Amino acid sequence: MDRNDFSSKLREATNRNGSRLVLALDYSDVFSRSERNLWKIKKEKLLKKAVETLENTAEHLAAVKINMQLILPLGLFNDLQRVVDKVEEYELPLIADCKLNDVGHTNLWITQHIFNAGFDAIIANPFVGWEGGLDTVFEEARKRGKGIILLVYMSHPAAQEGYGQIVLTNEGEKPQYVIFAEKALKWKANGVVVGATRPMIVKKVKDILGETVPIFSPGIGVQGGRIEEAFKSGVNYAIVGRTILNSPDPGKTAKNLKETINDVLRLLGEERGAG
Amino acid sequence: MDRNDFSSKLREATNRNGSRLVLALDYSDVFSRSERNLWKIKKEKLLKKAVETLENTAEHLAAVKINMQLILPLGLFNDLQRVVDKVEEYELPLIADCKLNDVGHTNLWITQHIFNAGFDAIIANPFVGWEGGLDTVFEEARKRGKGIILLVYMSHPAAQEGYGQIVLTNEGEKPQYVIFAEKALKWKANGVVVGATRPMIVKKVKDILGETVPIFSPGIGVQGGRIEEAFKSGVNYAIVGRTILNSPDPGKTAKNLKETINDVLRLLGEERGAG
Repeated sequence: MDRNDFSSKLREATNRNGSRLVLALDYSDVFSRSERNLWKIKKEKLLKKAVETLENTAEHLAAVKINMQLILPLGLFNDLQRVVDKVEEYELPLIADCKLNDVGHTNLWITQHIFNAGFDAIIANPFVGWEGGLDTVFEEARKRGKGIILLVYMSHPAAQEGYGQIVLTNEGEKPQYVIFAEKALKWKANGVVVGATRPMIVKKVKDILGETVPIFSPGIGVQGGRIEEAFKSGVNYAIVGRTILNSPDPGKTAKNLKETINDVLRLLGEERGAG
Repeated sequence: MDRNDFSSKLREATNRNGSRLVLALDYSDVFSRSERNLWKIKKEKLLKKAVETLENTAEHLAAVKINMQLILPLGLFNDLQRVVDKVEEYELPLIADCKLNDVGHTNLWITQHIFNAGFDAIIANPFVGWEGGLDTVFEEARKRGKGIILLVYMSHPAAQEGYGQIVLTNEGEKPQYVIFAEKALKWKANGVVVGATRPMIVKKVKDILGETVPIFSPGIGVQGGRIEEAFKSGVNYAIVGRTILNSPDPGKTAKNLKETINDVLRLLGEERGAG
């Protein structure tokens, strides 16, 4: 794996910008089939917002995450490319939040499209399993130095209905998120997602992963998670969307978040691995 | 709910075309950032294949399913609209195979985009749970007469790693797919997906759902599932992609599949509910 691989790129951006902040660039707008004449204007507006926020926040970021909110209206091989160009200009790793959970041949198509479109990493759901599920996706990522980040516990209220299940395994009863964290280790994932809304789960996942696999944590801000608690529990990167996007000054908000995280890390007296 | 709702539209197409066949229109092609000059030609080629196959197969179909193979390269509010137009022309219900598994506000954005783009139904993963997961998605679908189809057991080898888990619940030990089938009933889903590669699972899911929620079954053909076994076990609709797409004569293959299914249903001496 060369120095252009996802994990190296993430480490470099982390160090360069002194930041553990991942921007979730989740702008969107309502498009409808009956108003095709408005699409061009709406796409331009959406693009403008996305690019402006990148320009204002880039120096405070470790990475950028893009989800279907932006991919679906802009089109992966259409206007979205201008957002990808901008992220590339700032040399930030770009993560596609596809929460991949299809059969192998479809997962591979999605992954190829995402990587070919200029993304450095993709998020996948380990629930789909290995054989004919994520095996070919990991193979593709390894071949190209790209990253795969696995969901281990999400940030929404109902996450316990799935990620919090107790499962009977050959090794006895296990929480679902423990099974997923163990898969992240075994499959050599480049990161995991654990919601900041559940610091106790972050801690348990950290005990399994140590500093081998970094923890990315959404749910800070609008969803109620607290930065200090999250990083104390073992989070390596905070994923923040709406708190920055809805701010009157996204650049300032990103800077403040970055500095708050760094203050917490300094207080913890540690240099937590950048991944 | 009016007669334009997804389930009515599906019933009508089923009766009109005498078909229990759902076409998975999963053509794709390799696009890359370094060959932007080729995109336009490749998109046209992809569109042409998709539209031609629709023209040749439409009269033998009950519905059309589109996945990210086609959405990502063509763009939901870009060239894909020409495929949507074509499906609309044949009055076939159009299903988006997004396997939704994100947090509520993102799921809602994806669902709105998909419905606004002309789709009649969307596939979701019940693993994500209700509160702040799929609650808003069901609400949106109900409001608009759109459909939601839930994954209950997928067709790939590793599906047992997730869908086949034994989970400890308040009501004792339960297979994951039983929990999912019960959610489909409780949430009033418009259909479930169970892989044809596991006829015993289809049978067990059928025992739970009866004729209330139709079973859509992928995995016939390339993935090894057999039509007769699948429909005997309780499948209502066969989802077929590659067997038709890779055939030298997709129209003839679709016709043969349709007739084989109808022969099986006649032999079973039943009029299985169309959903």
